[in-house]
Amino acid sequence: MSAAFTISLDAMGGDHAPEIVLKGAALARVRYPSAHFLLFGDEARLNTLLKAEKALAGHCTIRHTGHVITGDTKPSQAIRQGRQSSMWKAIDAVKNGEAAGVVSAGNTGALMAIAKLIMRPLPGIDRPAICSLFPTRLGETVMLDLGANSLCDARNLVEFAVMGACFARTMLGMARPSVGLLNVGSEEVKGTDALREANQMLRGSRLEMEFAGFIEGDDIAKGTVDVVVTDGFTGNVALKTAEGTAKLFAEFLKAAIRSSLLAKFGMLFAKPALAQVMARTDARRYNGALFVGLNGVVVKSHGGTDAVGFANAIGVAVDMISRDLNSKIAEELARMAAPLEQADSEADPSTPSKTEPTAVAEAPTQ
Amino acid sequence: MSAAFTISLDAMGGDHAPEIVLKGAALARVRYPSAHFLLFGDEARLNTLLKAEKALAGHCTIRHTGHVITGDTKPSQAIRQGRQSSMWKAIDAVKNGEAAGVVSAGNTGALMAIAKLIMRPLPGIDRPAICSLFPTRLGETVMLDLGANSLCDARNLVEFAVMGACFARTMLGMARPSVGLLNVGSEEVKGTDALREANQMLRGSRLEMEFAGFIEGDDIAKGTVDVVVTDGFTGNVALKTAEGTAKLFAEFLKAAIRSSLLAKFGMLFAKPALAQVMARTDARRYNGALFVGLNGVVVKSHGGTDAVGFANAIGVAVDMISRDLNSKIAEELARMAAPLEQADSEADPSTPSKTEPTAVAEAPTQ
Repeated sequence: MSAAFTISLDAMGGDHAPEIVLKGAALARVRYPSAHFLLFGDEARLNTLLKAEKALAGHCTIRHTGHVITGDTKPSQAIRQGRQSSMWKAIDAVKNGEAAGVVSAGNTGALMAIAKLIMRPLPGIDRPAICSLFPTRLGETVMLDLGANSLCDARNLVEFAVMGACFARTMLGMARPSVGLLNVGSEEVKGTDALREANQMLRGSRLEMEFAGFIEGDDIAKGTVDVVVTDGFTGNVALKTAEGTAKLFAEFLKAAIRSSLLAKFGMLFAKPALAQVMARTDARRYNGALFVGLNGVVVKSHGGTDAVGFANAIGVAVDMISRDLNSKIAEELARMAAPLEQADSEADPSTPSKTEPTAVAEAPTQ
Repeated sequence: MSAAFTISLDAMGGDHAPEIVLKGAALARVRYPSAHFLLFGDEARLNTLLKAEKALAGHCTIRHTGHVITGDTKPSQAIRQGRQSSMWKAIDAVKNGEAAGVVSAGNTGALMAIAKLIMRPLPGIDRPAICSLFPTRLGETVMLDLGANSLCDARNLVEFAVMGACFARTMLGMARPSVGLLNVGSEEVKGTDALREANQMLRGSRLEMEFAGFIEGDDIAKGTVDVVVTDGFTGNVALKTAEGTAKLFAEFLKAAIRSSLLAKFGMLFAKPALAQVMARTDARRYNGALFVGLNGVVVKSHGGTDAVGFANAIGVAVDMISRDLNSKIAEELARMAAPLEQADSEADPSTPSKTEPTAVAEAPTQ
């Protein structure tokens, strides 16, 4: 992006805030020279830290907030008591039009709850989801939901598929991404009722995607599909299991090299190749999960990340701001409005559809 | 084990059967010289293959079966139509007392369904589960359920905890294993109703374990607990996601080394260290999942494994036969009979408890 834009930051969210937030913003500012940051947090601490970050001088504004939403705050508590917090104010800045997007490394549940309350879900979206990229054998895969909704019905899963496919088209430049539903087997009879029903709905849809049916856990890293759709419970466990396994492998590797003098000598030569592997699987590289399905750009950074990871999360927000993901999601929802309306009216004929009229669904994609 | 014992093998189950079953049995026979194998399958094919396996000569008996349960057979179909299959006959041999345990690389759902029908669950166990070991930073962790039961209630999860703890005590020699419930956060409010209820039940129990509460996906590889308890859907996805991630890491590593001449040179020295890492994370090493909670030893091998992997699955069966896991599970169930009876009677006062009377629960462990 060349035009100037502002991103609001919850400077107090995360395990190492506000230090890594400022350092991350400084790194991001070098990468995005037209970025301006609106920092919400403890003014005195932020001013002191800011002195060390030359790259941010003149490119950020500090807004004092006295309250911080901690990691153990329940979403309902955050909603009731969090109005003066750095997180709330940072989200509010997007709603007010002061910022084009917000990044926080704070409490995920609270961030989603406040963002839903302030920004509202997109028309036609029942449950916004947490969406991120995964490294795979073939490149990258989009995965959602990573933890916003523990229990999902078929309709939620179908909405995730729509949003995930739009994310892949927008962010990875895929014309017709392939989409799979994460299950315990590829046969049609496998899994929960919600999965089987979503499978039927997606098979019959006219969406801009190749629906690949059910996939399994090992298909994520294989890159079998461009978009992996799952409920937030399973997605969160899969994400963290993959992170844990990658770390374990890296540790085993380091321990094996340390244990042998010959290996240490060999590693002098193999180090750049090894560094390349570590870079490809570096969790910081994939830091920054988008909350898709909201009327605005909200990016969640891992709570324990460092400045490099936080800068990458800011990068996700910049990408989302510069490309128009939300209007693409609205277009796709319109395209599938007809079949979903039908499903709605079967369930409850009195509920009017929240999506666009069917005529729009027939219109070609712009 | 020094005394002779017989293991029945479903010689036709799995992607590379019967070849790898015979080769695997031959490898296992070298490791366990008092083992005898009862092979169920196509007699003509097995006799031909047997000629190449010198280690098996005189140590196996072939029983002809004409029917094979394929990978896409539904459990209900297998129950109705599978009576003449190699899988059914192999399980039946344990029930008849001809064999001390059975190993199959065939259809998991069919194997569990037939085993439950023929062997019956242990008294006090509602749902048998699939249980296996995972490599971790600290050694090994027991995980269950890996796919037998997609939907589980609190009582099922508590039974898994009991069986997993007994498995860890029996197989890994831990006096008081730590047990965690896999969830999307460690706070008590996280997760599904079943998880929260199981958490309460385990907190109040008098079982021989250290209950650690909720754990997350990355805790599996960290080795945070000795036993990871989860429903079969989540467990299956986590298992396959971990396998996929480990394979991806290994592939990235190989690709990086191939891409550089210097790295290739360095690898000449580092190769043994690297081989050590590959061995530690080799899926074949962890092949062989036990069906816990049945009145008999049933081990499921990965369908795509090779002879080394199949031999390891036979090794799991041998371990299970030589140590008396099932009586330890019965003991633990008796220990917790009182609190579970209470829970039962609250739910339905007319249902008599299937577990031992409370007096037994108070008796010290033998």
